[in-house]
Amino acid sequence: MNCVFCQIVSGEIPTYKIYEDENVIAILDISQATKGHTLIIAKEHYKNLYDIDDELAGNIFRVVPKIANAIKRAFNPIGLNVLVNTEKPLQTVFHFHMHLIPRYYLDGVDIDFINNQGNTSKEQYEEIKNEIIKQLNE
Amino acid sequence: MNCVFCQIVSGEIPTYKIYEDENVIAILDISQATKGHTLIIAKEHYKNLYDIDDELAGNIFRVVPKIANAIKRAFNPIGLNVLVNTEKPLQTVFHFHMHLIPRYYLDGVDIDFINNQGNTSKEQYEEIKNEIIKQLNE
Repeated sequence: MNCVFCQIVSGEIPTYKIYEDENVIAILDISQATKGHTLIIAKEHYKNLYDIDDELAGNIFRVVPKIANAIKRAFNPIGLNVLVNTEKPLQTVFHFHMHLIPRYYLDGVDIDFINNQGNTSKEQYEEIKNEIIKQLNE
Repeated sequence: MNCVFCQIVSGEIPTYKIYEDENVIAILDISQATKGHTLIIAKEHYKNLYDIDDELAGNIFRVVPKIANAIKRAFNPIGLNVLVNTEKPLQTVFHFHMHLIPRYYLDGVDIDFINNQGNTSKEQYEEIKNEIIKQLNE
């Protein structure tokens, strides 16, 4: 299987993981649209929203309020978007996932090109990850 | 209660309803960002994503694949976004809901101002509603 998200789920590709349960893992997006931009990835491989069943859909989304609140406490954004991209050109990785994008004043996020921000260093990723995990555990 | 979505849930305000179960109703957005733009609204009043619990979150999102597939069959969009806006200025109605936005070539949808399209007539709303309901029942 050449799916990059399957390799992330299996641990073959290292990531900045902030949460895991039997259905999903949550990691920092490797291209931070904004600080704290998080992906919630189904552990099972499904191409996209059209292919998942209602039970899996429910099991994935049930973790979203908890993680959104952790991001809120961590970085105090003015708001937050949950975004699911389905099919090209919106979707770039064909393994079901959703974006949590904390929003800040004049952050320049665009629905079609959300990976539009500058580089994030390894140290910054670690800091962001640890701050969210800290808030998740509070 | 002056909440417009509570009034929609109770039936005080008429809408183009395409789906209902014990947890949610799905209606056409009164400002169609694109053809088929649908809102999934929690029946219970919660301000936004930060305030719902994991069970309600799961119960709301579990209907999304079914409705997304009905929209896909109805209008054959190139893709589809699910979008949750949380807090001002992203969020305009403070009663938890999510947007399903079918996407078409050069549709001009923007994450911050999705209600940017022209007027939709009552007849067009009825046609859109009926087409989605038809596909939901297939």
